[in-house]
Amino acid sequence: MNYYGEVVARLIEELSRLPGIGPKSAQRIAFHILNLPREKAFDLANTITEARKTVKYCQVCQNLADADPCHICEDEARDRGMIMVVEDPRAMAAYEKTREFKGLYHILHGAISPLHGISPAEIKIKELLTRLGGEELHEVVIATNPTIEGEATAMYLSRLIKPLEIKVTRIAHGVPVGGDLEYVDEATLARALDGRREL
Amino acid sequence: MNYYGEVVARLIEELSRLPGIGPKSAQRIAFHILNLPREKAFDLANTITEARKTVKYCQVCQNLADADPCHICEDEARDRGMIMVVEDPRAMAAYEKTREFKGLYHILHGAISPLHGISPAEIKIKELLTRLGGEELHEVVIATNPTIEGEATAMYLSRLIKPLEIKVTRIAHGVPVGGDLEYVDEATLARALDGRREL
Repeated sequence: MNYYGEVVARLIEELSRLPGIGPKSAQRIAFHILNLPREKAFDLANTITEARKTVKYCQVCQNLADADPCHICEDEARDRGMIMVVEDPRAMAAYEKTREFKGLYHILHGAISPLHGISPAEIKIKELLTRLGGEELHEVVIATNPTIEGEATAMYLSRLIKPLEIKVTRIAHGVPVGGDLEYVDEATLARALDGRREL
Repeated sequence: MNYYGEVVARLIEELSRLPGIGPKSAQRIAFHILNLPREKAFDLANTITEARKTVKYCQVCQNLADADPCHICEDEARDRGMIMVVEDPRAMAAYEKTREFKGLYHILHGAISPLHGISPAEIKIKELLTRLGGEELHEVVIATNPTIEGEATAMYLSRLIKPLEIKVTRIAHGVPVGGDLEYVDEATLARALDGRREL
């Protein structure tokens, strides 16, 4: 049933297709937008249009950026000897926030998942391989998510890259900093024990 | 810090201003939009613009609708003897879904809340009063939310309208249908006892 009129119903429907937004949130957001000053609502719409128009994949690291190559790939100050492989731009942003990694990134845009029908050909692995020829490169850090799909992708990449005589590493699994052991799951505790280091 | 480039950062920022959307969800939604087929992203932007342009307050009930008067106020089949007063269009939609109410609505767009600086003048009470003159009207049902603000608004309206010799009613408080008494809060249990009816 349409209690609001056709345009409002359409707005609610379009919003409810966004990830993490159910029909109730979509209603709430729709009425928020309708109550915004006109310019604010138009700004939002224009930003969506502009972003979708201008943002492209960086042909080097596959990040979504408004420049190609993106500003990280272009940055002369970064260490061209290391590439960190992540599943998505959010993971890259998370590592950038740490300021601990000075190398380059490669964004796969997904992970291998036979269950969801995602094969290695469907994520940006081919594009990664073309980057491995450079003289300077000496290490690929695999920072896919600690999930079944992320681990499978890490294994797959390691088997693919090791024969090229490039060091392949995986970020450590263990107990999160600041966490309480009581609330850490068993798999993580086991991995933490397994990965123990001498002090 | 801007890890994504200026346009993407702006999109994330605009999205994170929407109600119920934090910075993480905003990131997630932004990348979803950037990965959409172009037309789908433009559809969303256009719907926002169109909705904000065409949707207006219905001058009778103050509902946000694309017609003025809205289709409910125009509907000849509805009972013009009753007006249900609600805080927002979502409450109206919730009652419409029940198909139990055949009268007209009045949307206040808020509730009186001295704490948040919302006085009676800031919600659509004046507009409600102008609707009370008609011969047919015999009952105003107050269906503001069961919150402190909603109750205060109900009390205020009842004092305002009763002297006009129009019946003013309030929707019942009680235990929700299908609920388990164990999980119902004490205030609701007390109100349910207070409002008990003979079988």
